[in-house]
Amino acid sequence: MKSGSEDNFSSISPAEFFYRNKQMAGFGNPTQAVYSTVRELVENALDACEEKKVFPEIQVIIKSIDTNTLSITVSDNGTGLPHNQIPRAFGRILYGSKYDARQRRGTFGLGVTMAVLYGQITTDTPVIIHTQQENSPGVFITLTIDIEKNQPVVISEDTRKRKPPGTTVTIHLQGDLTRSRDRIIEYLTLSTIGSPHAKIKLEIDDSTSMAWGAFSDEYPASTISCKPHPRSADFEILRRLLRANPNLSIHQFLVESFQQVGDRTASKFLTFMGFDSEMKVTDLSRKLIVRLSNALQKYDEFNRPDARCLSAIGKAPMIDSIESLFSPDFVAYEFQNPSEWNGHPFILEGILAIGPDFRPVSIPTLYRFANRVPLLYDASEDILTKVLRQLRWSRYGLKSPRPVAIFINLCSTRVPYKAAGKQSIAAIPQLESAADLLFKALGRKLNSAVRMSERSSRYKQQIRKFTKYFKHIVQFSAELADSSSIPPVDSMIQDLFEVDVDE
Amino acid sequence: MKSGSEDNFSSISPAEFFYRNKQMAGFGNPTQAVYSTVRELVENALDACEEKKVFPEIQVIIKSIDTNTLSITVSDNGTGLPHNQIPRAFGRILYGSKYDARQRRGTFGLGVTMAVLYGQITTDTPVIIHTQQENSPGVFITLTIDIEKNQPVVISEDTRKRKPPGTTVTIHLQGDLTRSRDRIIEYLTLSTIGSPHAKIKLEIDDSTSMAWGAFSDEYPASTISCKPHPRSADFEILRRLLRANPNLSIHQFLVESFQQVGDRTASKFLTFMGFDSEMKVTDLSRKLIVRLSNALQKYDEFNRPDARCLSAIGKAPMIDSIESLFSPDFVAYEFQNPSEWNGHPFILEGILAIGPDFRPVSIPTLYRFANRVPLLYDASEDILTKVLRQLRWSRYGLKSPRPVAIFINLCSTRVPYKAAGKQSIAAIPQLESAADLLFKALGRKLNSAVRMSERSSRYKQQIRKFTKYFKHIVQFSAELADSSSIPPVDSMIQDLFEVDVDE
Repeated sequence: MKSGSEDNFSSISPAEFFYRNKQMAGFGNPTQAVYSTVRELVENALDACEEKKVFPEIQVIIKSIDTNTLSITVSDNGTGLPHNQIPRAFGRILYGSKYDARQRRGTFGLGVTMAVLYGQITTDTPVIIHTQQENSPGVFITLTIDIEKNQPVVISEDTRKRKPPGTTVTIHLQGDLTRSRDRIIEYLTLSTIGSPHAKIKLEIDDSTSMAWGAFSDEYPASTISCKPHPRSADFEILRRLLRANPNLSIHQFLVESFQQVGDRTASKFLTFMGFDSEMKVTDLSRKLIVRLSNALQKYDEFNRPDARCLSAIGKAPMIDSIESLFSPDFVAYEFQNPSEWNGHPFILEGILAIGPDFRPVSIPTLYRFANRVPLLYDASEDILTKVLRQLRWSRYGLKSPRPVAIFINLCSTRVPYKAAGKQSIAAIPQLESAADLLFKALGRKLNSAVRMSERSSRYKQQIRKFTKYFKHIVQFSAELADSSSIPPVDSMIQDLFEVDVDE
Repeated sequence: MKSGSEDNFSSISPAEFFYRNKQMAGFGNPTQAVYSTVRELVENALDACEEKKVFPEIQVIIKSIDTNTLSITVSDNGTGLPHNQIPRAFGRILYGSKYDARQRRGTFGLGVTMAVLYGQITTDTPVIIHTQQENSPGVFITLTIDIEKNQPVVISEDTRKRKPPGTTVTIHLQGDLTRSRDRIIEYLTLSTIGSPHAKIKLEIDDSTSMAWGAFSDEYPASTISCKPHPRSADFEILRRLLRANPNLSIHQFLVESFQQVGDRTASKFLTFMGFDSEMKVTDLSRKLIVRLSNALQKYDEFNRPDARCLSAIGKAPMIDSIESLFSPDFVAYEFQNPSEWNGHPFILEGILAIGPDFRPVSIPTLYRFANRVPLLYDASEDILTKVLRQLRWSRYGLKSPRPVAIFINLCSTRVPYKAAGKQSIAAIPQLESAADLLFKALGRKLNSAVRMSERSSRYKQQIRKFTKYFKHIVQFSAELADSSSIPPVDSMIQDLFEVDVDE
């Protein structure tokens, strides 16, 4: 198995691992690197604003330094960072503030640090952070990463006012701006569908100045951190919870530790399992813990998970932003009730849109979002794409190509990304069936929209024919009656059918 | 940016990261988990045998314990493990013996530990390891992982003889054997193409007993660990090398630290760069280090990298195994000279095969291998698949579907996998162009094979026609000559055209 003589065994730090495998974190080539740096900084900027409950105003400034070196600066009006956390937040992989069970855009403690690392190895330049929290002095820090130790190295550190409070981060890196430009613009545009309440500005050198967003004044629902759902109780989680609550009875333990387990449910579950509900958790044998874990994961009478840890985009804001960006002729919104995969709650919401801004297709064009973040790469291996392609869209009105797109947003406390670069969703059976239901619901909306438009065009044709004959009849009747004036046929038809006569 | 109050910041261990994101390491669902466990154990078993230079004899035994629990045992005749390294080799993520610059199947120090972790969280059962090195007493150890600390926890430890030396590992896990069965068989079958010198046996309960391999008695070329190629000198690598060689002149430093840099090349490079070659490396300013790193990565007169750290399958062994498994009518082998991506050497080799065992297709069916390991999942996002699909195969003889397959093997000291689950290759420009060349070379072979077979079928048709007329002529001549015996026409034709007469 893992082999070799004694002396060539060694440990590497997580920073070293991702330094060696940059492509896994979205930094595999100079094009991706520019895109991922923008993405990670913007994600964090949006999270920081929502933390503070302000409408996000994000500014992205990209400057070419020479042919293949550039600087990327992202500013926000969010919470700002506590002074003593800055070095590790930017200079340590797998360190962060977002490991609790709430929906966040960033969750790995990996993305921004990877951008800092990539900048450092390609330009030898430290990251520059200027941040200020409300009622604190501002801080201006530059730092690099000791990759072998996975530790920040602060280069300089000053008190410096920043007005208004918020954070500005600048990263210098080698990258291919020409090839990443369109992707960045697409990413920022779609970000304002994921976050319709946010305003995002982009400047690239002197050539590009764009702005999007503020499509909705509805603020996203606040999320709260929830207890684990009993279905997530694998042995690791169960043992951690048992260790944290040594003095409880098994009944109390279940009620205290999990969501969706009240007194009634706990009693019912324990009776069903044949457990003594007064037993202390410290008295549980290994065999009983095995039984308990298996039963918690399989018992199917627990309620669906609490969705208050999640924050969907919502019908009105999502429609507002899509209508502002694509002027569709038709939109329909669908929503799947909260469900869970391995105990992690998730929601799926989606919009079907028809309009000339989309390409005519026989399978709808798919725009994917996860926790409101647009996913642009690796579409074909994404489970959402696979489910979409499995449906027979000819049944849902796409017998011939039409300009149709679907926007789908997966919200979860644990998005099962296939890789640390967060570009595509893994094949989780529960997600698969939820996506199938959502696409079918949107398909039915598509079908009736298509039939309605077909009916209405048939109807128009009939009116057109009738109008032609009616004019002849009117004229003929007038001649018969020796009347020289012909009645106003067009307005009569308009009265009759409530349509315009277009011939 | 990364936001929040001070007290909710925290660090997680790499084990915790991959525990939370199991799908990234190939353990996302019960089907994948079974497959990945077999794969990781077999990979390590093969590496251990090659370490010892013995012909691998690998045994895989899978036993159902109940409907969704099973045990997987893999035995090898390899080096065995040093006693004191066993706990960390199996119980610590990012710990291993394969971080040097040589081609290995496993390189992350992640795979087997993930299998142990998955077994533990789904069945609460420790991994069982029985190993013996040559001239050492055997060891029998069971252990689990402290996931939060990323540390092994040894449960039991004994001296126990194992005959012959080698390693046996057993992991209990929850998984879906029914759905993973075919994939495991496919994986093991293809593994004997990647390693034609290996013998692999599989037993599943009482129902399946199969064996493959030992198709070649050619032993794979040994690999040696090579110095870095100058093109890999990003700032991180350059600084590490400078730190390790503080007393050298810049000229000596280049010759000592890198491959493909002898005295002549170093002088030429330094003159080209305008560096003083006698300058001590400790005197290099930051600005000069920046210039040096950029120049090393871009200077295009360094030789191609040393391929002795790589070990391709090779023409004869690869053909032998494919002929044994698929009985093709036609095979052709192609090979791309060693090249590098970001300084990491790589080789591409491939076989084109035509035969009734393959499906008729208009784009060849692709079997992917990386460092001799078959890649079965996530094909469509793999850069090799993408390059294959971009070619116009109708130009290479596939105007109509034919039963054609391509087997491609990428060897590198650093395979750029898209995710830690090692299933697909990221879009690295240098790999892309090498794959394009290889596929085109194989395409030309396909084209001439197709034309040859068309020519030969035209030729056969002509012979058939000629045979018919010739028989008439012979008979007619015999009648004219009043001869009652007709000469043996068939054998005459066989003599004439060296073909069988099939009518």
